Amino acid sequence: MVNKNPEPGDPAAGNGILSRRIFLEGALVAGATGAGLSSVLAEPLTVHRWMKEPGAGFAGYGQPSRFESKVARFAPPPPNPATQGVGAARTPLHLLEGMITPSGLHFERSHSGIPDIDPDQHRLVIHGLVKRPLVFTVEALARYPMQSRIAFIECAGNSQALNAPQAQPLDVLGIHGLLGCQEWTGVRLSTLLDEAGVEPSARWLIAEGADSAAMSRSIPLAKAMDDALVCLYQNGERVRPSNGYPVRLLLPGFEGNMNLKWLRRIKLTTGPAMTKDETSKYTILLRDEKAWQFIFPMEVKSVITRPSPGLALKGPGFYEISGIAWSGNGSIRQVDVSADGGKSWAPAALQGPILPKASVRFRAPWQWNGGPAILQSRATDDTGMVQPTRAAFAAERGLRGVYHYNAIASWRIDEKGEATNVYA
Amino acid sequence: MVNKNPEPGDPAAGNGILSRRIFLEGALVAGATGAGLSSVLAEPLTVHRWMKEPGAGFAGYGQPSRFESKVARFAPPPPNPATQGVGAARTPLHLLEGMITPSGLHFERSHSGIPDIDPDQHRLVIHGLVKRPLVFTVEALARYPMQSRIAFIECAGNSQALNAPQAQPLDVLGIHGLLGCQEWTGVRLSTLLDEAGVEPSARWLIAEGADSAAMSRSIPLAKAMDDALVCLYQNGERVRPSNGYPVRLLLPGFEGNMNLKWLRRIKLTTGPAMTKDETSKYTILLRDEKAWQFIFPMEVKSVITRPSPGLALKGPGFYEISGIAWSGNGSIRQVDVSADGGKSWAPAALQGPILPKASVRFRAPWQWNGGPAILQSRATDDTGMVQPTRAAFAAERGLRGVYHYNAIASWRIDEKGEATNVYA
Repeated sequence: MVNKNPEPGDPAAGNGILSRRIFLEGALVAGATGAGLSSVLAEPLTVHRWMKEPGAGFAGYGQPSRFESKVARFAPPPPNPATQGVGAARTPLHLLEGMITPSGLHFERSHSGIPDIDPDQHRLVIHGLVKRPLVFTVEALARYPMQSRIAFIECAGNSQALNAPQAQPLDVLGIHGLLGCQEWTGVRLSTLLDEAGVEPSARWLIAEGADSAAMSRSIPLAKAMDDALVCLYQNGERVRPSNGYPVRLLLPGFEGNMNLKWLRRIKLTTGPAMTKDETSKYTILLRDEKAWQFIFPMEVKSVITRPSPGLALKGPGFYEISGIAWSGNGSIRQVDVSADGGKSWAPAALQGPILPKASVRFRAPWQWNGGPAILQSRATDDTGMVQPTRAAFAAERGLRGVYHYNAIASWRIDEKGEATNVYA
Repeated sequence: MVNKNPEPGDPAAGNGILSRRIFLEGALVAGATGAGLSSVLAEPLTVHRWMKEPGAGFAGYGQPSRFESKVARFAPPPPNPATQGVGAARTPLHLLEGMITPSGLHFERSHSGIPDIDPDQHRLVIHGLVKRPLVFTVEALARYPMQSRIAFIECAGNSQALNAPQAQPLDVLGIHGLLGCQEWTGVRLSTLLDEAGVEPSARWLIAEGADSAAMSRSIPLAKAMDDALVCLYQNGERVRPSNGYPVRLLLPGFEGNMNLKWLRRIKLTTGPAMTKDETSKYTILLRDEKAWQFIFPMEVKSVITRPSPGLALKGPGFYEISGIAWSGNGSIRQVDVSADGGKSWAPAALQGPILPKASVRFRAPWQWNGGPAILQSRATDDTGMVQPTRAAFAAERGLRGVYHYNAIASWRIDEKGEATNVYA
């Protein structure tokens, strides 16, 4: 049953998906009350301890409440001390709301840990096929004209757990937690390249980090001249050590590790360098013996963050389905949601501002009847690309690769209200 | 000398203000190089200690670099221990960039310190002129439909230092640091009021906090039904204790302390309650014996954050003037900058997205000739309101009040490149 022009409060797709118009027209009230979200005031409000004594004084740099200590990134412990910092710390997206990721929770992927860089000693060099090889201090970079933009960064390997033959018992963090979205501020890379004077023969550049892995990637010059930013700030303050302090390269929409952290060197070249980080890794294995290399933008994708594994429903009634959608190729145009495993779909409400190459929060009202349900979301971007089903994704690429997985994901809700990762 | 159609790199207003078109057309290069921002690469790049050993491992909740410890809020020490937490901690706006304020640095104004609230025990009550007095747990509030918006919050008393008869030797933090801008997410207050059933006689509501001052303010019902949000999240994570954990009221554009922290009670009434927090404080004294009360939106305003006191210029050459503008009545339409104390003006570049009742970053290129200069910014919002001169502000309201000061501010740059707060 799919209702194309539902009234507020009416079903808009199967298994309880309601019209997003409910948000505008206030038809929720009865349903919400009926679900026991609020209760009628029966006794005077308790005056707790914290209203009877003065509160704490001021802190120079604030922290979350001690009651929120579970809201943390997660990284598996290293197999031995020598490999600390090799791997990833994942963002608890299921415990967050809105579009912005706080800096303390932005995911991190490191190839040799987080370097402790003294910004007064750090330098950025631009050399190779340029007229004037230049060196910049961090202080000098901070004097150039700045630009800001809100942009997502997603690790190329995000969601690779869904390549496993059997659906793994993982949550949003474990499957999709290599994603963040922040306001980044820095100098246009094109400004610095113009100053160095790019030679006509240059077509690519190699960007290298100051970590002890010297992580390095080849980047097309066209992207560098288009919208690349040499960032000094994330969410208003200086870039965090785990995200590239003191200088990070932002390549909006491109796979995460090309957004090079601890940026120290940019070398202009005629072709890609075939570094270890783009050959042994970050190349997309296909179903046959072939591979795709240098596929940079992260494709259109979405994930439902609530309900999701670990956030059990508390009995039948009203729930908001909430999630995020993004595309490295442009802006999100539409997100559809389904509660019956893709048999029927209804459009979710998109939270503005909708910005290119930035995460968008989507929300849809859902009346859970207490029976089994399969929740899915499907994003479409403004280039017309639509998130594929898992079957269509596998048919095109196979499931041997671990990068750029963007198929529709599914949460099964059981009669107890528990959510599980399933293939559907 | 004012040039109405300047070419990139040409002056757009007196004393070195250049055209904002410079940002688009790359005419900066020569000027930047000439100013010694970069230097020609003369020797191989140093391989520092941090490239020779593995870096640090992962943290559940990240922190800024240890080299950024000076980037902190500031609150004067309390005169005695009993008044800890009475006052304000100010945001170091001069050390930030972009639009978003990180949560650890968002200003705080507290009337009796920061309560340590257990969210499982906290309740929000809606009562008074309603059909069904209701009580909400935090967990219940988290199940309602959410909305997000990026909004500034400014303390009504921000910038009151500029009321002093003589210009004080203060910096951006000391004068203007009671301002922040974040993404806030929560439940529309109108949704909760609809569920309670507002009686036709209700016109106002009293909102009360769970701090030991029981801070409380009267709010027109029309604002509550328009765009008020009962917030659970700021910048993606749960609201911080210093900003109202676990529940904060957001009244976009209205003076800071009406955005009630630690929200525990909303009572519907026929008129304002005349609480101590809106009579002994937060009422605007005028030049005669009169006062304005219940003037809620913070008026259009801007401040140059860089250059500013404490951030000395390093010799003549290119500098970017950077600042923020905001209006509680709508969106910023234009910001003009002047380097000659208001004799001539040129439009600054505005960084999108430009959102209603949110901060906007503005930037303007400036070629400092090494001589004295007076830097000013002047914002205009989409209602047509223009930031007044200090003389015009004083002529209308006098300078006895300490709230809603929004006149044009001035930094004097001396021959050494030092910036000072002046009246000009």
